[in-house]
Amino acid sequence: MVIKKAVITAAGKDQRKLPLQTLIDRDGVQRSVLEILVREALDAGIEEVCVVVHPGDEHTYPGVLGAEDRKVHFTVQEESLGYGHALYCARPFTGEDAFLHLVGDHLYISQGDTGCARHLVAVAAQEGCAISAVHPVRESIMPHYGVIGGQRMMGRGDLYTIDKVMEKPTPTEAELQLMIPGIRAGHYLCFFGMHVLTPLIMDILEESIRRLEPGQKANLSSSLNELARREQYLGLEKKDLRYDVGTKYGLLKAQIALALSGRDREQVLSELLELFASKASGHTGTAQS
Amino acid sequence: MVIKKAVITAAGKDQRKLPLQTLIDRDGVQRSVLEILVREALDAGIEEVCVVVHPGDEHTYPGVLGAEDRKVHFTVQEESLGYGHALYCARPFTGEDAFLHLVGDHLYISQGDTGCARHLVAVAAQEGCAISAVHPVRESIMPHYGVIGGQRMMGRGDLYTIDKVMEKPTPTEAELQLMIPGIRAGHYLCFFGMHVLTPLIMDILEESIRRLEPGQKANLSSSLNELARREQYLGLEKKDLRYDVGTKYGLLKAQIALALSGRDREQVLSELLELFASKASGHTGTAQS
Repeated sequence: MVIKKAVITAAGKDQRKLPLQTLIDRDGVQRSVLEILVREALDAGIEEVCVVVHPGDEHTYPGVLGAEDRKVHFTVQEESLGYGHALYCARPFTGEDAFLHLVGDHLYISQGDTGCARHLVAVAAQEGCAISAVHPVRESIMPHYGVIGGQRMMGRGDLYTIDKVMEKPTPTEAELQLMIPGIRAGHYLCFFGMHVLTPLIMDILEESIRRLEPGQKANLSSSLNELARREQYLGLEKKDLRYDVGTKYGLLKAQIALALSGRDREQVLSELLELFASKASGHTGTAQS
Repeated sequence: MVIKKAVITAAGKDQRKLPLQTLIDRDGVQRSVLEILVREALDAGIEEVCVVVHPGDEHTYPGVLGAEDRKVHFTVQEESLGYGHALYCARPFTGEDAFLHLVGDHLYISQGDTGCARHLVAVAAQEGCAISAVHPVRESIMPHYGVIGGQRMMGRGDLYTIDKVMEKPTPTEAELQLMIPGIRAGHYLCFFGMHVLTPLIMDILEESIRRLEPGQKANLSSSLNELARREQYLGLEKKDLRYDVGTKYGLLKAQIALALSGRDREQVLSELLELFASKASGHTGTAQS
């Protein structure tokens, strides 16, 4: 399977300013969140990226892409019919190809030398099927996520066959349907916010959107559950960090994690410890530049 | 003197994305840098704000103002003729009125109950003249700033009469012309990035812009130096913090300072210390939301 396209969804009402926010990346360079995500995709061998945006943002976002803007297309989600619908808006772009999918409000920080997306794309190409990055999450914070059920693959410690996907399951539902042998007690495998998907997902999304009642929204998890029924679909367990920059103080935490993982580590560490110590002690500190 | 207008300059080429960046303010609410600045002005009794922007940004910036957008006008700086020229572009707005001036790449964090701008505007109204907030800066980092020379006013520990303003003076120039009796050795009073100015500054800027040679830019300091020659002009020494969010990691430092000065202090302190400890020790930490 060849994966040369990526889709980034950034059309959510609450996340509209997020891709414009700038962070200093691990190389010490200031970039927008959107540019960091696009570079994550390009580093994985992706050649063209489609960003699904809220109407109007197709004029604002191209300005924050730096040197990568030629490889990026924008598609407008004309109606707010949910996350699944936003992804479906990229169908004319993905066509009959498999594609990498990232969400526009997450940042991924690899703990090793290989980027998160690069690792996922390499495994997908090798296995020749749809695959989602997953990570174990404590039951108590699980209801915010799509959660998978399945089996660990023989002889592969980090790969799972997925046979069920549920969006925001209750603890009881999770215990009955999503327990995976070998996963730490009280933990479930939740989506990490990064997938390689096959064109079949677009057919499934189309059916699900056609069946929407007025006022309903299309989520992605129920279509992924259908995908698991019809095709081989795997989960790749990631040990990397990811930050939901759409949460309160999410950008702050992501910036600190980036800075402390990168080349400015020593400088930032000493500056922050100084600032921190003065503010933490209630000391007023001194005016500074 | 009545001060009901404010001008925020945000047209600098390097600062164009800054006003769009979002931070969580001291009340725990997510706001754009521009909205935080506008609120700083409104809290000082300002009724109308003019933001001077780079061409095109007048369409982008209104979207980040939250509830305050009705009180804000945008003026485009059509030519990049320097900071002094950007301020001059607001002349049709300021007319014959005194006005508060803030720079779009600074955030001000008051150490007391009164906002920085509110304090400055109150003193300006009382003294009835132009006044700039200043703070002592070590000689070694001084060259980045406009620096004042003058005298401490009798019986007023925090007020100075300004008789000279120099932009980025050399240490020798500063020592000869800008030493102020009573200021700590090796320190000079530098601009804090917040001023109350009288209409005369617009006349002086106009003259200075008319005299510009091709390729030259109009700075503000030389016009403020002329203002000091023609009118009473004071400096108010501030003990507050201000952050230049245009510098590398400036946004990060501002966000941490805001969070640790505000209502989310305890929550942020514990979350950051945890993140910090795990990253500072080189520990990989765990994936988190």
